[in-house]
Amino acid sequence: MNLSDTDFSQLAQEALERCLALGRLSEEAGRLTRTFLSPPMREVHRLLTAWMQELGMAVRVDAVGNLIGRYPGQTPDAPALLMGSHVDTVRDAGRFDGLLGVTLALAVVKALGGRRLSLAIEVIAFSEEEGVRFGVPFLGSKAIVGRFEPALLKLQDAEGQTVEAAIRAFGLEPAQIPQAAYDPAFVKGFLEFHIEQGPVLEALGYPLGLVEGIVGQSRLEVAFRGQAGHAGTAPMHLRKDALAGAAEWITLVEREAREEPGLVATVGMITALPGAANVIPGEVQMSLDVRHLEDDTRSQAVANLITRAQQVAQRRGLELGYQTLYEQPAVPCDPGLNRLLAQALEAQGYPVHRMVSGAGHDAMVMAALCPATMLFLRSPGGLSHHPEESVWPQDVEAALRVGLDFLHRLAAHLG
Amino acid sequence: MNLSDTDFSQLAQEALERCLALGRLSEEAGRLTRTFLSPPMREVHRLLTAWMQELGMAVRVDAVGNLIGRYPGQTPDAPALLMGSHVDTVRDAGRFDGLLGVTLALAVVKALGGRRLSLAIEVIAFSEEEGVRFGVPFLGSKAIVGRFEPALLKLQDAEGQTVEAAIRAFGLEPAQIPQAAYDPAFVKGFLEFHIEQGPVLEALGYPLGLVEGIVGQSRLEVAFRGQAGHAGTAPMHLRKDALAGAAEWITLVEREAREEPGLVATVGMITALPGAANVIPGEVQMSLDVRHLEDDTRSQAVANLITRAQQVAQRRGLELGYQTLYEQPAVPCDPGLNRLLAQALEAQGYPVHRMVSGAGHDAMVMAALCPATMLFLRSPGGLSHHPEESVWPQDVEAALRVGLDFLHRLAAHLG
Repeated sequence: MNLSDTDFSQLAQEALERCLALGRLSEEAGRLTRTFLSPPMREVHRLLTAWMQELGMAVRVDAVGNLIGRYPGQTPDAPALLMGSHVDTVRDAGRFDGLLGVTLALAVVKALGGRRLSLAIEVIAFSEEEGVRFGVPFLGSKAIVGRFEPALLKLQDAEGQTVEAAIRAFGLEPAQIPQAAYDPAFVKGFLEFHIEQGPVLEALGYPLGLVEGIVGQSRLEVAFRGQAGHAGTAPMHLRKDALAGAAEWITLVEREAREEPGLVATVGMITALPGAANVIPGEVQMSLDVRHLEDDTRSQAVANLITRAQQVAQRRGLELGYQTLYEQPAVPCDPGLNRLLAQALEAQGYPVHRMVSGAGHDAMVMAALCPATMLFLRSPGGLSHHPEESVWPQDVEAALRVGLDFLHRLAAHLG
Repeated sequence: MNLSDTDFSQLAQEALERCLALGRLSEEAGRLTRTFLSPPMREVHRLLTAWMQELGMAVRVDAVGNLIGRYPGQTPDAPALLMGSHVDTVRDAGRFDGLLGVTLALAVVKALGGRRLSLAIEVIAFSEEEGVRFGVPFLGSKAIVGRFEPALLKLQDAEGQTVEAAIRAFGLEPAQIPQAAYDPAFVKGFLEFHIEQGPVLEALGYPLGLVEGIVGQSRLEVAFRGQAGHAGTAPMHLRKDALAGAAEWITLVEREAREEPGLVATVGMITALPGAANVIPGEVQMSLDVRHLEDDTRSQAVANLITRAQQVAQRRGLELGYQTLYEQPAVPCDPGLNRLLAQALEAQGYPVHRMVSGAGHDAMVMAALCPATMLFLRSPGGLSHHPEESVWPQDVEAALRVGLDFLHRLAAHLG
């Protein structure tokens, strides 16, 4: 069966409309907020189950609430390509972050028109990725890769309900979480469609981006301490102004990051103490967030920025304090899957733009189980985690064409 | 009568000890806080009254609580030199800010040893200068210069008590405030001894500073608005980071101020929004405080810093917002009094260091009534509004010698 242009366009349109339908299922009136195992998640499961069953998929919900539809392969023991994304949201969310990765995966299955491949396909609607309800993200994908630590069950939400109680309240059995883990022997890979959540593809005029990896991240606290003083009585040359030092350093952070390709460095929080208009700041506390796909480059950049801070502090007679809050290594996407995805992009007539993901995704966790990769769709205005988040229908169609082509290549590859 | 070195040293020591004694009179246990007409102010008045009466001074309290001791001249209608400073404090104050200006004035009178001059001397313990209790400073000196606006009576403190009620509760009559105003015809000038509250004299190694004027001040709010974004997904070249722009501007504020002699410019408050470690700041709000003795120089500096901010904003695609919160013109000290003070400094063997006051003082208000000036005493560590604020005994002795010499010169000058 070959699909016409009209078929692709209609399937893409359906995938978008399903996002809008799912986006109406919210905990809060007037805006979309749908956290892990919240009441509207039942209705999400009902809709997804119906759409999956129409495609001949077998549907199940695992013990952390991941909803999984299996589209069988030519043989009962055919290995599976996993596709999907998360169906939980941030507060006051957009309607495409996560959701589009599920509805697009279903569109790819639908485009097969019932044809069986050497591969099975499992579409996963991950129950938790954003970390909103319990403060810890990736609860869904952690269960699937067998890394759901039992301590997570004791986390409490704002109402004091634990993860364990929330799972039971949803009608699931926490003791069965270990059985949610996939056996790697039966999994060929994981593909996640996701909106970019950034401005890069739009700036370049490209519909799609091939994700080479998810950046590693360093998070630090940095403080300059000088001497508070009266803004009127202390002449400029006798000051130890912590904010003037911090400002000099922030400009260096920006400059250094601009000079290293692929590096991003951000000071997002700043507090000047004592914080009065007529008092020279005696202390400034800041956050520093540094990300890069190469862990060595990131570590080197952090070391370099600390050296810069030391130089600024020394020259100004300030005291420097800093500590690393956490370090998360980069997760490369699978080169084998990416080779096939690049071929699919070329075959379908789209530019092959290789890029990194600056944010975490389920694919990052899934890489512990199997070869994993992502295909980004252009984000208009770079908007994300925002009710006006959107996506172009023609980009959804492009992703669908590329996804289907990729699927055939992967199936052919397996034989 | 001529004083021996020992006499000067003992008088200086007594002035210091009296500051310590007054510093024990506080509203709060364990630290010095003494606001306008608070209960411990009665005990301050009791001590000051006793010390003044020992010197043969006639003591009165005016309707806003200024305590005034008059040391008569050779004739009943002799014009007066006014001396003094304030006896209210900030919260958790030091013990010399204000108080030393009163005890030193009494030491000068004491050094006269009862001798009458062609001048009367009035020592004023101003009841309010810091603005702590009612949020408005200079309530004491405003009454003395006849500029106590009736609306001030309606101001409320944190407990909801008005200025009017506080005055009555202290046993005074608000309706008599107009009578607190001095007739300029009977006043020859005002001299205020005060700690510098800054690091300049200490850095130069000078005990005393001759104040040429109290700087004018501009206070502004400045905001840069860019675009908030994800710290991972927005590459450096596609950001509109309001904090990076603000940091660049803060370094320019410091640089411009350093290049203009006598100018101080301070960013004391900064807020970055939304203020999360993983979000590029979309907006930054700051305070700007600019001071100089020449109003034209200050206005020009403010205009220049706004131009710089506009340039930064334009180059970075940010939006600039600013507004002037207030402008306070500079108040020059009286050149005639300063000529005599300079002569006294030279005659007593001290360097004549001319400097500005970067903070407001009662002398600033008193300049509306009569020729006014100030003599600064070195502030160890530049400390001010701090419990460890201090002053060197030898500097107090220097101020005493210079004050007495000045007084004789002024008396001789008059006749």
